[in-house]
Amino acid sequence: MAYRSDTVGAGIEAVQAEGVTGRVMTAIRRRIAGRVLNAGEKLPSIRQFARDMQVSPSTVVEAYDRLAAEGLIRSRPGSGFYVAGALPVALAEVEPKLDRAVDPFWVSRQSLDAGPGMLRPGCGWLPPAFMPQAAIRRAVRALAKAGDAVLTDYGPTRGSLALRQLLVRGFASEGIEAGADQILLTASGTRATDLLCRFLLAPGDTVLVDDPCYFNFQALLRAHGARIISVPYTPTGPDVAAFEQALIAHRPRLYVTNAALHNPTGATLSPRTAHSLLTLAAAHDLTIIEDEIFADFEPEPSPRLAALDGLNRVIRIGSFSKTLSASIRCGYIVARPDWIEALVDLQVATSFGGPSPVAAELVLGTLNDGSYRKHIAALRGRLAKRRREVMGQLAPLGIRPWIEPRGGFTLWCRLPGGRDAAEVAKAALKEKVVLAPGNAFSVTQSAKEFMRFNVAQMEPQVLKVLERALG
Amino acid sequence: MAYRSDTVGAGIEAVQAEGVTGRVMTAIRRRIAGRVLNAGEKLPSIRQFARDMQVSPSTVVEAYDRLAAEGLIRSRPGSGFYVAGALPVALAEVEPKLDRAVDPFWVSRQSLDAGPGMLRPGCGWLPPAFMPQAAIRRAVRALAKAGDAVLTDYGPTRGSLALRQLLVRGFASEGIEAGADQILLTASGTRATDLLCRFLLAPGDTVLVDDPCYFNFQALLRAHGARIISVPYTPTGPDVAAFEQALIAHRPRLYVTNAALHNPTGATLSPRTAHSLLTLAAAHDLTIIEDEIFADFEPEPSPRLAALDGLNRVIRIGSFSKTLSASIRCGYIVARPDWIEALVDLQVATSFGGPSPVAAELVLGTLNDGSYRKHIAALRGRLAKRRREVMGQLAPLGIRPWIEPRGGFTLWCRLPGGRDAAEVAKAALKEKVVLAPGNAFSVTQSAKEFMRFNVAQMEPQVLKVLERALG
Repeated sequence: MAYRSDTVGAGIEAVQAEGVTGRVMTAIRRRIAGRVLNAGEKLPSIRQFARDMQVSPSTVVEAYDRLAAEGLIRSRPGSGFYVAGALPVALAEVEPKLDRAVDPFWVSRQSLDAGPGMLRPGCGWLPPAFMPQAAIRRAVRALAKAGDAVLTDYGPTRGSLALRQLLVRGFASEGIEAGADQILLTASGTRATDLLCRFLLAPGDTVLVDDPCYFNFQALLRAHGARIISVPYTPTGPDVAAFEQALIAHRPRLYVTNAALHNPTGATLSPRTAHSLLTLAAAHDLTIIEDEIFADFEPEPSPRLAALDGLNRVIRIGSFSKTLSASIRCGYIVARPDWIEALVDLQVATSFGGPSPVAAELVLGTLNDGSYRKHIAALRGRLAKRRREVMGQLAPLGIRPWIEPRGGFTLWCRLPGGRDAAEVAKAALKEKVVLAPGNAFSVTQSAKEFMRFNVAQMEPQVLKVLERALG
Repeated sequence: MAYRSDTVGAGIEAVQAEGVTGRVMTAIRRRIAGRVLNAGEKLPSIRQFARDMQVSPSTVVEAYDRLAAEGLIRSRPGSGFYVAGALPVALAEVEPKLDRAVDPFWVSRQSLDAGPGMLRPGCGWLPPAFMPQAAIRRAVRALAKAGDAVLTDYGPTRGSLALRQLLVRGFASEGIEAGADQILLTASGTRATDLLCRFLLAPGDTVLVDDPCYFNFQALLRAHGARIISVPYTPTGPDVAAFEQALIAHRPRLYVTNAALHNPTGATLSPRTAHSLLTLAAAHDLTIIEDEIFADFEPEPSPRLAALDGLNRVIRIGSFSKTLSASIRCGYIVARPDWIEALVDLQVATSFGGPSPVAAELVLGTLNDGSYRKHIAALRGRLAKRRREVMGQLAPLGIRPWIEPRGGFTLWCRLPGGRDAAEVAKAALKEKVVLAPGNAFSVTQSAKEFMRFNVAQMEPQVLKVLERALG
């Protein structure tokens, strides 16, 4: 199938362009990627754009023609050029290839498709040996004896009632009063955020994220045609003054953030910041998605926006990918009952159902297994030890954590001597090590010197490769 | 949790309105549902709209205020009224409650959430006893012994290579030359279509469907803000003259249809129609999604657009929900390699992955089970017998199939004496029988007298309820 890879390769080559024409093409691509120009919108006239870019009209003609050949824009004879309909094509391809290291897709694509010979200290999940294998296997064996309908029927639209009831009890212990009908099971945590974005956003709406933030929030929001703005994240949560300023200046519809342990920094919201955020959200009619995907790693629970707010304008989402299994995919949304009712329709329309009912059954079986609570407690201890060990290993390389997280498996570190993490990551990739350079997490591209390390994936070989890449 | 149902119920009540104000509200709702007015767009001025509707300005004020209270529109003081941001809220709620019987969500919501006491001759799937239970259980037991990574890791971005290679061999036998890298596994067949709509459509783009067509195509396309047009489906495929006319008049970007056995009619594309459609698609730059979800039910394969076209402008999608399991959710997309490459990014952004890797493993295990081929052959024979039996049972009630399908489990039938299928379905629902009234499948609402029956779900009680509902 080499010819197929060649075809793809040729396509990527064609996206690159050089010199002054390339510069004009890049400018247009950026406007489309940043939604300055939306699908169906008319491009600037050739003369106008030639003036703006201080190039000749014939260069703009050439650039527009090439972008039209790529399908990014379309010519309407006698009328001009328009942004083509298929927005999401632009998601990753619009960036010049050289920027791919800081593309929000870089870490996920490299990590997910890494061959068996690759090491993945940049990935966002635990190795199989950290997961509750025995409990999962017991759940699988129980599934083999389940009723026929469990194995072959669609489930109810909100997903397994037994699993939702179990979640209800967990939320109640956090002070979140939610009925089982306020929970919608989804195919994954990402899919939960995706459904909510569809529900809440129209293209062009502004969304606020943390800087840095989980890279896939950016990728997802781009797919929704949202305008993304960010506020700096501090060791106690987002910078409250910058948060207020952003609400006033940009009127975002939505704020997407983490509960418990922030990705990538590992920081935790302070009570005072949590209260301030909710006060500001109420004053500016802001909806908040709180992703608790790392919550089970916390030694003691930190303030939760959903609990403080009573699920009024805060929506809780989460999944079991980090502590149970990423292969048994299942996520959830907890929100106001009227919102869940509308989200059910939206999920039926776009997926017909949520998670595989067999996957929900396996999650339920594993959570109910007597060993699961012990697994989580042991995991917390094991990761605390790994964090200390890895900090000790990184220190001699001059790599220092921004903070020491209270839990979890990530360390957000500053590289020594102002080194560019993207360059280090590219060098390491040649040696079969996938790293997570800081700017993949930064909307403002202000985390050039940072790197996220997964302490559970730090094989000894990684340190050698890092040393060479830095050296 | 009764208070929650009450809250939802009250919300629905409030959506209803009567008299002249109700008429104005309905007119606005229809414009928003039909995307004549898009999210964020300004509504007509009160005076203007009062003139258009031939009502008093105060009636329009009242209607706008009520719609604002419902959250469908927003008032901006000093500026007027605007369509609210959250488009998808409008999906089902914009229809007056009385139309709920012909809502594209009606059949799916009623069928999926039907309690154990309900009968579901309107649903679109087979009962557990028709599914390959023994083979699935063998696959589950094998999963309990799989490697640790299978049970807990994310899979590759395109999904299980072994399953994709198995699909490649199946496609080759149909004359479709596709490499494993041209296949993207997805969480379901619906999700495959959803990803493709995101990839191909911008809001406001026009999409062509059959009339009648699978109701969820309509629900999905609404969620994408598409303008939906339809062409009549004949016993040999869509009406070719109407198809050409639609391409000329409306320039649709996309046509979504079924391969093999059309849902709901059970009809099959003739070779001549297939060729005509592809010729017209090429002339009008139309992309086609061909959903082969019912293909395994065919006695011999009918013409496939994807095979004739060589996957140039036709995209094949499918899943295993109908012949293997709807609980082990897994779908796929087969398309041009450059499109698949872009779809991978889009799936990572919006779901992080495709199906649960454990689900893909169970599908693979069941398909590879020695008994699966025999299961399919036996299933075809069993359904042929059931179709004949059910036709014989419906005939005395005056219910006649539009055609006798070559395979599958659906019969598209005309009710006697011009009876309104929506009314019959509502009457049957009171007796705990979920039917599938024709207009749920019809964009033009021209299938009022039709009903889709699932021959595998026709318990004796259904006939009695039908007789009473018709009587």
